[in-house]
Amino acid sequence: MSTRSHDLREERALVAWLGELFASGHRDLRVPIGDDAAVVRARGRALVATCDPVVEGVHFARGTPPAAIGRKAVNRNLSDLAAMGAHADWLLVSALLPHGLAPRTLRALFTGVRAAADAAGCAVIGGDVSATPGPLVLTVTALGHLAGRALRRDALRIGDTLHVTGPLGGSALGHHLRFRPHLSEGAWLARQRAVGAAIDVSDGLLLDLDRMLVASGGLGAELWEGQVPIAPAARRCARESGRSPLDHALGDGEDYVLLFSVRAGRRLPAGGPLLRAARAPIGRVTARPGLRAVAPDGTGRALAPSGFRHRV
Amino acid sequence: MSTRSHDLREERALVAWLGELFASGHRDLRVPIGDDAAVVRARGRALVATCDPVVEGVHFARGTPPAAIGRKAVNRNLSDLAAMGAHADWLLVSALLPHGLAPRTLRALFTGVRAAADAAGCAVIGGDVSATPGPLVLTVTALGHLAGRALRRDALRIGDTLHVTGPLGGSALGHHLRFRPHLSEGAWLARQRAVGAAIDVSDGLLLDLDRMLVASGGLGAELWEGQVPIAPAARRCARESGRSPLDHALGDGEDYVLLFSVRAGRRLPAGGPLLRAARAPIGRVTARPGLRAVAPDGTGRALAPSGFRHRV
Repeated sequence: MSTRSHDLREERALVAWLGELFASGHRDLRVPIGDDAAVVRARGRALVATCDPVVEGVHFARGTPPAAIGRKAVNRNLSDLAAMGAHADWLLVSALLPHGLAPRTLRALFTGVRAAADAAGCAVIGGDVSATPGPLVLTVTALGHLAGRALRRDALRIGDTLHVTGPLGGSALGHHLRFRPHLSEGAWLARQRAVGAAIDVSDGLLLDLDRMLVASGGLGAELWEGQVPIAPAARRCARESGRSPLDHALGDGEDYVLLFSVRAGRRLPAGGPLLRAARAPIGRVTARPGLRAVAPDGTGRALAPSGFRHRV
Repeated sequence: MSTRSHDLREERALVAWLGELFASGHRDLRVPIGDDAAVVRARGRALVATCDPVVEGVHFARGTPPAAIGRKAVNRNLSDLAAMGAHADWLLVSALLPHGLAPRTLRALFTGVRAAADAAGCAVIGGDVSATPGPLVLTVTALGHLAGRALRRDALRIGDTLHVTGPLGGSALGHHLRFRPHLSEGAWLARQRAVGAAIDVSDGLLLDLDRMLVASGGLGAELWEGQVPIAPAARRCARESGRSPLDHALGDGEDYVLLFSVRAGRRLPAGGPLLRAARAPIGRVTARPGLRAVAPDGTGRALAPSGFRHRV
């Protein structure tokens, strides 16, 4: 962890504070925060790595509580690890701080980072704090190891049923800051032979499903309208927007649940961390490209893989 | 590697282009760009990880050739790995792109990233491309493995001699965009028992030396004025600034050479990648705290560990 600051005393105090906040007696941590880079013992033979930012005005609104920003920056990346079926081990945090940011805001940001790391059982081992002329940015790198095989997004097959690990829609009302990354669900799914492909729903069910279908060679899917689990917040959003709750569930994004497939003719075993709703299919992969919604009465309509807007 | 874009066709084209640019048949790469996270085989048992951004208006000026920005973003992080004595293996790149950035600028940025990765023998395995209302930011995470033991900055001892792997000063004239990370030097130093501590000189010799001294328990150092290797660019800067070339060498920063120590009474073995100048000491670690310059005639003066400004 290094900082770039003109005031050396301030820098030393910040590095000392960060070193304490992220202190870890972990036996696998060989060189902790404070050096040019962190050194850790590799866990397992397959290293899983991802890196995503949160940007003020894009991923969170001005005025968002800083601890919530810190948590979101971590949890977005842990959701990506979850979608690969990985356990979370280590985090690096790069913070770009606007000039004049209050010290207590900085402390609250990193306290949020620590809280999210603790909740997932992983540790912050390094990063960087720099000043910026632009908006606040927190970029987190999450490192983990596979719990079983890798849950790929490009492994859909015709006839797979589609499932989600939680309800969808309305994340703008608060879920986008308060979600729990589905790490235990992902790790469990990665050990089930019935499971095909997986992705996390960050940009909306339709968009992320479309990405899986494209990656899997240009397949299509039908979604069974009556089966898509709709979050209570999606219904509240619908009362304001005049659109349907289902529309919000399909397009809002930032749900951070896992969308996964089960091979045709196979069943998920009992037990494990899944909600009951995750065992009921919400649709099916088809040879015919494109997305279709099928109503409970059997009538179908084409769906466009759009609807993504960042909720700020 | 994922992108956040409202235009799905544009996103697909970008992901496909990035996938091709960073395509790698590396046998250790198990899930390449395109999924939620990358999966690689861990190399060695000690994983080394660092993460630093470059921000427009802080680390590079508006108008900097985009390929040079891409190279700098990578090489800054590789310099941190070098300072730990690590080999570079993998990179993740998070790009924050201002609205309206030209596609060819984007391509040149990532072409620079690829060139720097190739030069160091490492591969880009993931990352993220997002739009931002602020300045252009490239944040790179570099992952590697130890070549020997870890070269720590907190391992200075009284009596150690101090050395640098290249000349210092004047980086504003172009070196800050064109430097080569001293990976081979770091890996060699990590295998020498005579070597004590190491850091890379990013914020200026005095500032980075001060960081080593503080980390090593509050030691001091004297620098031998006639022995500090001064880059030709430092002399050119001095003609403009009216300050001495030595001042520029001590304070400019962005040199990205390694500052390391050799234990008292020990010698570096012959051979290896070091310049001859790196074998001649530029100073010595003292019990008395603080930094002192010692002139060739033996007169001393106190030095303040300041002088850092980002060269843009």
